[in-house]
Amino acid sequence: MASQALENPDRLVTSDDPEHPANLIPSLCAKFWTLGWVTGTGGGASIRDDDLVYIAPSGVQKELMKPQDIYVLSLAAQEASLKNRTYLRSPPSYKPSQCTPLFLAAFTRRGAGCCIHTHSHWAVLVTLILESMPNGGHDGSHRVFEINNIEQIKGFGRGHGKTGNLGYHDTLRIPVIENTAHEEDLTEFLEEAMDKYPDTYAVLVRRHGVYVWGDNVHKAKTQCESLDYLFQLAVEMKQLGIPWISEVPVTVPRRS
Amino acid sequence: MASQALENPDRLVTSDDPEHPANLIPSLCAKFWTLGWVTGTGGGASIRDDDLVYIAPSGVQKELMKPQDIYVLSLAAQEASLKNRTYLRSPPSYKPSQCTPLFLAAFTRRGAGCCIHTHSHWAVLVTLILESMPNGGHDGSHRVFEINNIEQIKGFGRGHGKTGNLGYHDTLRIPVIENTAHEEDLTEFLEEAMDKYPDTYAVLVRRHGVYVWGDNVHKAKTQCESLDYLFQLAVEMKQLGIPWISEVPVTVPRRS
Amino acid sequence: MASQALENPDRLVTSDDPEHPANLIPSLCAKFWTLGWVTGTGGGASIRDDDLVYIAPSGVQKELMKPQDIYVLSLAAQEASLKNRTYLRSPPSYKPSQCTPLFLAAFTRRGAGCCIHTHSHWAVLVTLILESMPNGGHDGSHRVFEINNIEQIKGFGRGHGKTGNLGYHDTLRIPVIENTAHEEDLTEFLEEAMDKYPDTYAVLVRRHGVYVWGDNVHKAKTQCESLDYLFQLAVEMKQLGIPWISEVPVTVPRRS
Amino acid sequence: MASQALENPDRLVTSDDPEHPANLIPSLCAKFWTLGWVTGTGGGASIRDDDLVYIAPSGVQKELMKPQDIYVLSLAAQEASLKNRTYLRSPPSYKPSQCTPLFLAAFTRRGAGCCIHTHSHWAVLVTLILESMPNGGHDGSHRVFEINNIEQIKGFGRGHGKTGNLGYHDTLRIPVIENTAHEEDLTEFLEEAMDKYPDTYAVLVRRHGVYVWGDNVHKAKTQCESLDYLFQLAVEMKQLGIPWISEVPVTVPRRS
Repeated sequence: MASQALENPDRLVTSDDPEHPANLIPSLCAKFWTLGWVTGTGGGASIRDDDLVYIAPSGVQKELMKPQDIYVLSLAAQEASLKNRTYLRSPPSYKPSQCTPLFLAAFTRRGAGCCIHTHSHWAVLVTLILESMPNGGHDGSHRVFEINNIEQIKGFGRGHGKTGNLGYHDTLRIPVIENTAHEEDLTEFLEEAMDKYPDTYAVLVRRHGVYVWGDNVHKAKTQCESLDYLFQLAVEMKQLGIPWISEVPVTVPRRS
Repeated sequence: MASQALENPDRLVTSDDPEHPANLIPSLCAKFWTLGWVTGTGGGASIRDDDLVYIAPSGVQKELMKPQDIYVLSLAAQEASLKNRTYLRSPPSYKPSQCTPLFLAAFTRRGAGCCIHTHSHWAVLVTLILESMPNGGHDGSHRVFEINNIEQIKGFGRGHGKTGNLGYHDTLRIPVIENTAHEEDLTEFLEEAMDKYPDTYAVLVRRHGVYVWGDNVHKAKTQCESLDYLFQLAVEMKQLGIPWISEVPVTVPRRS
Repeated sequence: MASQALENPDRLVTSDDPEHPANLIPSLCAKFWTLGWVTGTGGGASIRDDDLVYIAPSGVQKELMKPQDIYVLSLAAQEASLKNRTYLRSPPSYKPSQCTPLFLAAFTRRGAGCCIHTHSHWAVLVTLILESMPNGGHDGSHRVFEINNIEQIKGFGRGHGKTGNLGYHDTLRIPVIENTAHEEDLTEFLEEAMDKYPDTYAVLVRRHGVYVWGDNVHKAKTQCESLDYLFQLAVEMKQLGIPWISEVPVTVPRRS
Repeated sequence: MASQALENPDRLVTSDDPEHPANLIPSLCAKFWTLGWVTGTGGGASIRDDDLVYIAPSGVQKELMKPQDIYVLSLAAQEASLKNRTYLRSPPSYKPSQCTPLFLAAFTRRGAGCCIHTHSHWAVLVTLILESMPNGGHDGSHRVFEINNIEQIKGFGRGHGKTGNLGYHDTLRIPVIENTAHEEDLTEFLEEAMDKYPDTYAVLVRRHGVYVWGDNVHKAKTQCESLDYLFQLAVEMKQLGIPWISEVPVTVPRRS
């Protein structure tokens, strides 16, 4: 298929199947636009199907994106030659997304099937609240968002390669990396955070937004929704003077 | 019909009628998703039609659910054998919802026709505000949300088996139960709260959400909407320093 | 037409014209539901076409209403016999709305063509803020919401029988009436407020919502939107410590 | 085409192309209505196609606008005779928008292809917060909204005639002009602000809203979205006590 596609690269983004990545990215991004996650061309999404990576372009109005706007590249070819990125298929207009190396980090380092980048207000506000705290949260040297004892925490997996999801009493930790003037320069910080927090499925970017990934589209999207829910709740808790971390009560023994 | 269905269980979820429970649960859940009640696979809904109980599965994206994703079980068979839950019809993928025993409690103990479970921010925030109050509201031993003198309170029935709705000056009371690590373990707390508050149509779960039921889909949905409205109002009142309970003024005599 | 209708009353609510009141009320109410104005069967709307008055029923889910759910009555017959309300056409299910006498007050006393009743959070919060103020606003004996120097104030007419709209520097005044246990008992308070504020197109009801009317559907709807906008702004101004009334600056002379 | 149009002016607003300005203005305004930018007939939009200027009328419900409601005028004819505005095409009902001279200022002074005027709450609240500050922001004589170190700032061009967009560390400056009793009287203030801030793509109007323009529809809309995002964030930052301007950190050198 790849060799066929090279003769006619547009076949890579042409399908009647609404679940095909080239159709799914536009429909997902339109939904994310209504949620306020991708506004004014900010934010984006990428899906990996085996070796093929589909990426929304830069500068597009996310709710108006079409399958023919999508870039496609080969993950293996990309890994072989990091400096010279070549696309199997490029749209006639638009430029590649600056998020590309960040999406690729989720695919190569975590085997993710989908990565979503939002500029959600709630994500940005959480990073602003963290930077205004004395030690920027519990970890002074590297800021991290922490919350526990909220049911929606169960929406996250325990970590790449682990089975099952976090529990109600577990503490969800999302590291925060510094923003940079050029988005592709975030890559090394993102990779560093991935190394330091091997179980995380998301990384916050200070005054910028969040990257969330998952094994597939379903998991990336539902983890992104759960996280946005928790970020919103965290801002509202802050406004009401309620701390994000509470003592774990003595657990009620499960009926056998 | 049940015997026919057992030969071909998928007939239980196949209907052209948009009001059929297997069609109604997906359309309701899509609506609840846009309201922010069910996000990242959280929350759910169940409808009872006589002896048949239809339940949304676990782990599904609620706005994308389809009739073929629905579980069906017999209420009578369930009551006869609580330990061994058997489904008349199961979807090919997905797992049963952990909410199942909680939905069943509303059906068996209150004769409800529909039960909705949301993770609404407003519900969670109300429980967080209550736990930060000196006595957790008016009832120290068992937290309860109380509000009066708001018109929307009229949206609730007086209680199971009673006629008519609450009045403007009546106090709406919604008990709050403790959250547990495993959602099915909530069942005994929910049943205990139902016993203690025999007139309630809803139970809040601390740091988790709310269960709301009604005699039928119409009543469960409108009571859930009215309650979410009141939870939102209560959070906004708290932010403005306005108490939830006010003295009942001398009532204006009704014209005869 | 009225005599024809009496033989077949359902003709009064049957039309292919989307602008027919029986079609317009459901489509407006569905829109109002998405705006959060009518939730859990609360709120409603009525349109007057010459002598015929079309009213949404009580207890209906406002986003699901159908033309056949609409009540129709004759304004003249109603005025002749206030005690015995008779409907030219009634839906097979549902009960008449308790808002009916309030809608009629707008039609008979102001010649309105449409009246909208919302339970908007912002309207309720404005009445709650007013009751927490030392004198309940500028007028201690009869609470009134007042705001000036906001562009959206231009969205309101100067008053029934007057030409033109309010100006940017004019003060918009919306009286607040006490809520009653039974909604129809609001009527005399509403009429009293109409008498005291002859130029108002709206009356707030404490801890309940707002009634807004206009010469036609267009004016009632746009005035209701402008008012909801101002109520929301007023709550946000309160949270930021910004007063609703500011000194009118020396006006810039208009270029001739 | 212009001469053809004069014989049959309605041809100017008749097209099957959804990208034709007469079709695009209604679809954009419907979208802006759902965003809360144009409510109760407030706000508006205008598109310039070479010499032809298309403008939404005054007093229309923005989500219900139709192509036949659009005014069309010639920019060249307008510039030749500022006092006597003549329209190539006028709708049968409605009046011309009072925003017309403000839209024209963006077209003539900045060569803009589209100008959007919103009454967004966030824009109005930003002007209210600024007027409550000791010096109304950093520039006492002429209020200005300033924010830096937020990723979404990259959504703005560097200025008319300049290439590229603002960077993360750049300070976005949006001047605020005084509101006037009559909207057309804003024109000279708007033009003055354009002169003083030659790189701005937007001007806030105190207690009123914002005008945003761009080289084309895409740029005007995405800049308007980015600005509304920043206004909302700024209000939320104010509520959390976080300043809009922070010290620019030492920039991380870009990898070469």
